[in-house]
Amino acid sequence: MSDLSHLINHQFRLASRPVGLPTQANWSRTQELVQAPPPGGLLLKTLALSLDPAMRGWMNEGKSYIAPVAIGEVMRAGGVGQVLASNHPQFAVGDYVSAGFGVQEYLTLGPDELARNGVAKIDLRLGSLTQWLNVLGMPGMTGYFGLMDVGQPQAGETLVVSGAAGAVGQTVGQMARIKGCRVVGIAGGPAKCDWVVGELGFDACIDYKAGPNAVKDGLKQHCPKGVDIYFDNVGGEILDTVLTRINRRARIIICGAISQYNNTTPVQGPKNYLSLLVNRARMEGIVVFDYAARYPQAIAEMAGYLKDGRMKSKEDVVQGLDAFPDALGKLFSGENFGKLVLQVAPT
Amino acid sequence: MSDLSHLINHQFRLASRPVGLPTQANWSRTQELVQAPPPGGLLLKTLALSLDPAMRGWMNEGKSYIAPVAIGEVMRAGGVGQVLASNHPQFAVGDYVSAGFGVQEYLTLGPDELARNGVAKIDLRLGSLTQWLNVLGMPGMTGYFGLMDVGQPQAGETLVVSGAAGAVGQTVGQMARIKGCRVVGIAGGPAKCDWVVGELGFDACIDYKAGPNAVKDGLKQHCPKGVDIYFDNVGGEILDTVLTRINRRARIIICGAISQYNNTTPVQGPKNYLSLLVNRARMEGIVVFDYAARYPQAIAEMAGYLKDGRMKSKEDVVQGLDAFPDALGKLFSGENFGKLVLQVAPT
Repeated sequence: MSDLSHLINHQFRLASRPVGLPTQANWSRTQELVQAPPPGGLLLKTLALSLDPAMRGWMNEGKSYIAPVAIGEVMRAGGVGQVLASNHPQFAVGDYVSAGFGVQEYLTLGPDELARNGVAKIDLRLGSLTQWLNVLGMPGMTGYFGLMDVGQPQAGETLVVSGAAGAVGQTVGQMARIKGCRVVGIAGGPAKCDWVVGELGFDACIDYKAGPNAVKDGLKQHCPKGVDIYFDNVGGEILDTVLTRINRRARIIICGAISQYNNTTPVQGPKNYLSLLVNRARMEGIVVFDYAARYPQAIAEMAGYLKDGRMKSKEDVVQGLDAFPDALGKLFSGENFGKLVLQVAPT
Repeated sequence: MSDLSHLINHQFRLASRPVGLPTQANWSRTQELVQAPPPGGLLLKTLALSLDPAMRGWMNEGKSYIAPVAIGEVMRAGGVGQVLASNHPQFAVGDYVSAGFGVQEYLTLGPDELARNGVAKIDLRLGSLTQWLNVLGMPGMTGYFGLMDVGQPQAGETLVVSGAAGAVGQTVGQMARIKGCRVVGIAGGPAKCDWVVGELGFDACIDYKAGPNAVKDGLKQHCPKGVDIYFDNVGGEILDTVLTRINRRARIIICGAISQYNNTTPVQGPKNYLSLLVNRARMEGIVVFDYAARYPQAIAEMAGYLKDGRMKSKEDVVQGLDAFPDALGKLFSGENFGKLVLQVAPT
């Protein structure tokens, strides 16, 4: 332990709550000496962090499905890392784990904090480190349970997913394809669209940036039998447009609304929501934590698909803790191509 | 039959599609000679018609859950009446029936048209003629199945219903109370609120006209444990306000949106719809026709409650076919107190 005691832990803390898009001014870079683990505790080293649209919500004040990050607190982030020092019988130095690391290089946890931070060993034979932040991580679990439990896909149905090249979208589209659905993605730009069709095997992908009627026309063209399931990651105009094409008893999974997170005006409500009435359809929200007890089952199933090639994954890896503020901005401009990962230490 | 052949049938036909609130100019009054029933058919006399918010939607062009009323067509309306002449073995002169009468005094149907117009005998021992347009009619069926199938009320849960003094609202609130829920209505004006609490036994009723924060404050006061089920008949601001008070796994039944039907601007989408995500809640539409096979079961159950006094009903009866345009207007101004009925002939 003595050689760890002089390690410096660099961190990003929330300095102020953003109005609109987060800026550098919303963060303070801090550093502190790494603490040795208490009895029963662990010292973890961050290897890679998951950057997710949900982080924007955690920066806001007010009630949500999870408490906001307090001003002055290390920014919340899930990640993968390695045990540097262990006083816990079930963890050995060198073990790989996923956990709520926060945007920092090291994390010291007491025995009571392990569960609260979701510390769990990960098996790199099932997937790579970055896949453990993608298909096998929170976004993958979100996509899996949102699709399977709320969407309840039936073979032959048509599924549409927005943010198709993102972490959740990849999982949803590929799982729906495996379950026998016609799968149509919505993504920004031809590169992402080509990839989800060419690499992931989606039936089609609509480039929402291709013109003002791109989504409307694309749905008409690629969903000739209407939309049975819409997995919504974006909200706004795209949600409203899909609502005009849903079938009877359609299911709309509300997973996120990235188009609205940086609004300085009120959220744009779906003005076509009465399509739910006309079509006896359902719009339902999902929060991944509710399914924690069933993560292992979903991980096992999807690790099998990764292994046999029925699922693929793509991560967009940005290097270095200091790149955090800029990297987060990529999510909201749609610049990331694949699941956005911040690599904090070499592996 | 000979004495029926000179009867005049007065009618209201749709002359033009309204922009905003319907006006007299949207209707043409027509008359024609009553036709004798063909072999296997019926001649029906209208006694009373049901005036419902949904009629506004039928006046619009465009795809909905039912075809629009065509220009020049007799306005669609459900009603109750009597068999004046019968060539059908299952109907006798004098039988009471419910049917899609249209806004007219008489209706002649061929044998193929009986099912299409939903002709069914009604039993006045189960409820009065006007109750057959209210709790035992379409609004009652809408409330019953929306609540029971989509809302799935559990004893101890809190239900909120808007349009509480209206036809659907009466049914929903009283059924939820019978099922053991805490029931809070939303209605316009103290008279309606006093009635749903004093007569129908709701736990509370919020007068949405009492001030700009009346609904917000009322929900806070009367739903101390939050809202588990919201049965929405109105949409707009009230829907948005209720969305801020829902519990985890709440169910929102989208039955209508009377606040939006006469808009000349786009429908106001629920800007707080992301509360569905935070609360893992569901918003689902209902169309009553889907439950036609189960109407008898719901009628039998609620007729029992009417008989033993556990349910009451209130109808607001307007006299005379010619009053139709003005009576319809009462719905949208909220002037009607109870289920709005147009009495076409004395009973």
